[in-house]
Formats: sequence, C-alpha cells, structure tokens
Amino acid sequence: MRLAANAPVQPVAERVAEVADLVTVALDELLPRADGPEARLTEAMRYAALGPGKRLRPYFAMEASRLFDIEERPVLRAACALECVHAYSLVHDDLPAMDDDDMRRGRPTVHIAYDEATAILAGDALQTAAFDIILHPDTHEDAAVRCALAARLSLASGARGMAGGQMIDLLGVRDDLEGVARMQRLKTGALFTYAFEIPLIVAGASDDQCQALTAFAHDIGLAYQIVDDLLDVDGDETVLGKAANGKDAAQGKTNFVTLLGVDQARHRVAQLADQARSHLDLFGPDAENLKGSVDFVLNRRS
Amino acid sequence: MRLAANAPVQPVAERVAEVADLVTVALDELLPRADGPEARLTEAMRYAALGPGKRLRPYFAMEASRLFDIEERPVLRAACALECVHAYSLVHDDLPAMDDDDMRRGRPTVHIAYDEATAILAGDALQTAAFDIILHPDTHEDAAVRCALAARLSLASGARGMAGGQMIDLLGVRDDLEGVARMQRLKTGALFTYAFEIPLIVAGASDDQCQALTAFAHDIGLAYQIVDDLLDVDGDETVLGKAANGKDAAQGKTNFVTLLGVDQARHRVAQLADQARSHLDLFGPDAENLKGSVDFVLNRRS
Repeated sequence: MRLAANAPVQPVAERVAEVADLVTVALDELLPRADGPEARLTEAMRYAALGPGKRLRPYFAMEASRLFDIEERPVLRAACALECVHAYSLVHDDLPAMDDDDMRRGRPTVHIAYDEATAILAGDALQTAAFDIILHPDTHEDAAVRCALAARLSLASGARGMAGGQMIDLLGVRDDLEGVARMQRLKTGALFTYAFEIPLIVAGASDDQCQALTAFAHDIGLAYQIVDDLLDVDGDETVLGKAANGKDAAQGKTNFVTLLGVDQARHRVAQLADQARSHLDLFGPDAENLKGSVDFVLNRRS
Repeated sequence: MRLAANAPVQPVAERVAEVADLVTVALDELLPRADGPEARLTEAMRYAALGPGKRLRPYFAMEASRLFDIEERPVLRAACALECVHAYSLVHDDLPAMDDDDMRRGRPTVHIAYDEATAILAGDALQTAAFDIILHPDTHEDAAVRCALAARLSLASGARGMAGGQMIDLLGVRDDLEGVARMQRLKTGALFTYAFEIPLIVAGASDDQCQALTAFAHDIGLAYQIVDDLLDVDGDETVLGKAANGKDAAQGKTNFVTLLGVDQARHRVAQLADQARSHLDLFGPDAENLKGSVDFVLNRRS
C-alpha cells in the first residue's frame, strides 16, 4: 500500500490513534515469542513494548512519510524499531539504580511486574530486536536503505545520542540553559529526529527536504521537552500515570522550567510551535496534517 | 591487506596474542569518545571493552577467515562488534541484580569501578556501538554484506540467542543435560557461532563450508562451556580473577559437571575436540592453524 501524498486533512487525534493501533499490531507480530524457559524474557519485552503508549515517534514517522510518494511498510517497520528503542530506554530508566520509578503509564514498571534482572535483560533484548526488525529483508528490498535506517538508529541511540543524554541527566551536569538544551538534544531529541529521518531515508529526499524536516524535528522535540518540564511542575498525577509535582525540583535538578520560569517556558513553546510549522512551508499543502499535529502534540496533559 | 590462505602454521598462543592486540587497537579507534559531560559513559564503555581479555571470539573469526581468500578489514570490524556485544553482556551479567560479581579479569567490575547506573548505560551503549561499527560503510563496500553481518549478530545476541540463554540461566530452569545444553547453546554458543559466520558471510561461502564451520563452532563452544564448568569446580581464583570454587554448586545450579561428574565431563571435552577437528577436514591443510587452536583453547586454566 502506498501512502497518498495530498492526503485529505484528517483530525490529528484520529490519525494518532490510527497509527498507534497500526504500530501495536505490527510490533505484536514482529517481537519474538518463545515457548522454552526463556519465555519470561519475551513476555517482559512484550509487556514493555505493547502496553499503552502514545506512539508519538512512530506517528511522526508515518505522518511525515505522507509528504513523499513512498510505501508504508519500510516506514512502519522502522517506526516499530524506533518504538522498541524508546521502550527499552524507559525500562532501563525506570530501574532502581536509575530513576527508580514503580509506575509507568498507569501500570507497574517492568522491574516491579517481573524483577530487576528480567527488566535489564528485556531492555537489552528490545534494543537487539530493534536492529533485527530493521535489518530483515522484509523492511526494504534495497540493503543500502536497510543499512542506512539501522545506522542512523544506532547513532541516535548510542553514546552520542540517547544513552549519552541519559548519562548527562543522571550526572545532573546542567547548570544553564545550554546544558539543559544539550541534554535534551541527546536524550530525547535524537530519537525524535530519527522519526523524521525514516521517511527521508526511504524517500531518498533532497537536501532541502532533509533540512526542513530536521529543523521541524528539532523544534518540536525541544518544545515537547519543555512541555514535559511544565507538566512536571503542574501535571496531574492521575493523568500522567506517574509521580508529578516537581520531581525534578525536589531532586534539585535543573530543567527548562526551573531556569526559565513557567510563563517564559510557555512562551518559548508557542514560539517553537510557530517556527516548527514554518519549516514545513516547503512542502506546501501536503504538510497540513503535520502542521496540524503541532498543537495536538504540545497541548497534551500527560 | 588480504589474509593469505595457506598461511604457515603459527604457534597458537602467538596468533591469539596477535589478534588480541589487533582487536584492542581497532576497538580503541572504533569506540566513541566524548568531551562533554557524557564522557563518563564513553570512559566506562572503554573500561569494559578495552580491559584485559582473551578476545577468543575475535580470534576464531580472524583465524577462520584464513580459510578463505578475503580481506581482513571487514572481518576485524565485525569481530570488534562481536567483542562489544560480549563485553556488554559481561557488564550487565555482573550487575548486583544479576550475578552480582565485584571482580572480572582481575579488575573491579564496571558497576564497582563506576556505579550501577553508569554500568547499565555503558552496557546499553556498547550494544549500540556494535551495530554502529558493523553498519559503517568502512566495514564493507557492499551494503548487503553489512546488513547480513549485522542481522546475524542481532539474531545471536537477542531473545533467541544470548539474552534468552541468560534468562534461562537466571531462572535456573535446567534440570537435565538437555536443559543445560539448551542454555549453553543460547547463552554462549550463539556468539561463538557468530564468530565463524563472519568470514562465512564475507566470503560468500558454500553450503558445505558453512555446515563444516558451524559444526566446528558448535562443538568448540560446547566444549568451552564444559571446561568453564570444570574450572568452576577446581579453578584457581588467582588465575580466574574471579571467585571460583563451585559457585554454581553453592548456588544450587546444575551445570555439565554437576550432571556428568568431573571424569565424564573431561572425557566429553576430549571427544568434542576430536569431533571439532574432523569437521575441518573439508578445508585440507589450510585448517591446520584452526585445528591447532582446539587444544590451546580447551587447555586453558582461566
């Protein structure tokens, strides 16, 4: 099935839910199952990856792919791999030695539902599964495309991306806006950007198109993090499904809101949203859905 | 540089040391460095991967590649990736929630030298680095070869390979020889086999050659594990650099030696060594070095 360029404008909430379902069904097929005694591992992987989640990164990959005349399958499979990496990072971040969280999306975290050793292994194997999914010939007939998709994912996830950002977060080395921004760029920004790189790689997009979508990814990723920090201050625990109420501040951690204050942080989000939309002008009316997603994504309450 | 087929027979110890040096130098170049606050992460990765180690898996990959007329570079890079996966698995296995080991190869384990959170992240990022290294165009000019090398590594490492085997080990679900053999096949056998798959993939080897080397890998991997269990019973702690003296037995864990007894276990190792060598007859005199490695590898004291 090809994604129609010039797709009719669709309510964002509907499309986000549609992609979330697509991704959950695909992940259920793609993740390993086991009959042997190692079944506990594959069950924990599935618990982590198939539970409730907004699937925001896959949504961006799928929505951005509508800007090009490309097949859905490679994008969907790479988006599933991206979601595996995101899920693995949450499993490990929640561990007692890291953020020590018992609840995630309203359910016990993996080390609570299973145990710590299983959670470590499930995270490890989810990362492996991500590469397994992308590298399979079913993803794309051209090995060069599969390689590029996998290589960019490894760059976004490793020491120069997500894992490096998580290290900075743990160390708390972020006294100023620049430090906080650097941490965000690595910890959450790199995977956000990868969501847009998926269609760019599959489509073999032009430099202009790459620049426009990467700039969009940068702005939306940064704005999303500021909203996260705002929710940390005034989010409602019932909605978040995890402890809110100034956890960062209580831990003496600096974030965008502790540095900018609530009002200026909100102003910055609005500014980034405008800027993000303007990057998409290059794509003309095809980008209406993606433009429409900006407010939806940033007006979240959890 | 091409690896010479018909290479002169070289003392095994010399060749193992030569490959270990090659791999350490290559890994030092290939592993990420960081100047920013995330430098602690890349330092921990380097501590784990560049420390003393036999580099046995890379040795097998490099030695087996002499059976074919292929370039060294793709094999060395994939062998470095394999070593990264091996190193990551040791870092995570040593964690308090897993085997809880303080010492490894005569040095403090990563979570002792750094801390638990850093050890979790360093293991995660070492796995990512493995894929990063293989997928880089420098590994091989043909993306299909890079894809195959990376895909086989993911299969050997994930829930159906090493991570699955580690789950079985943690659960202690292995009452009989079949259970212990299944655990070994996944936990250590899969990566051993991958060492031989590297030259097979790069060379585009025939089915006969694939079968012969895979059978060799199976036998040598199994024999190596039985020797490991024998060392667990009568190994010398000073040589092992970690606690020995029946750790498995003390934890009520079944292994090849608790099931077979010491004498029968030793007999089985000798039998597997003979069988392993005979699989290599297909390659004629080119395989003398590899045949010579069998006793060296199995007569280890640590």
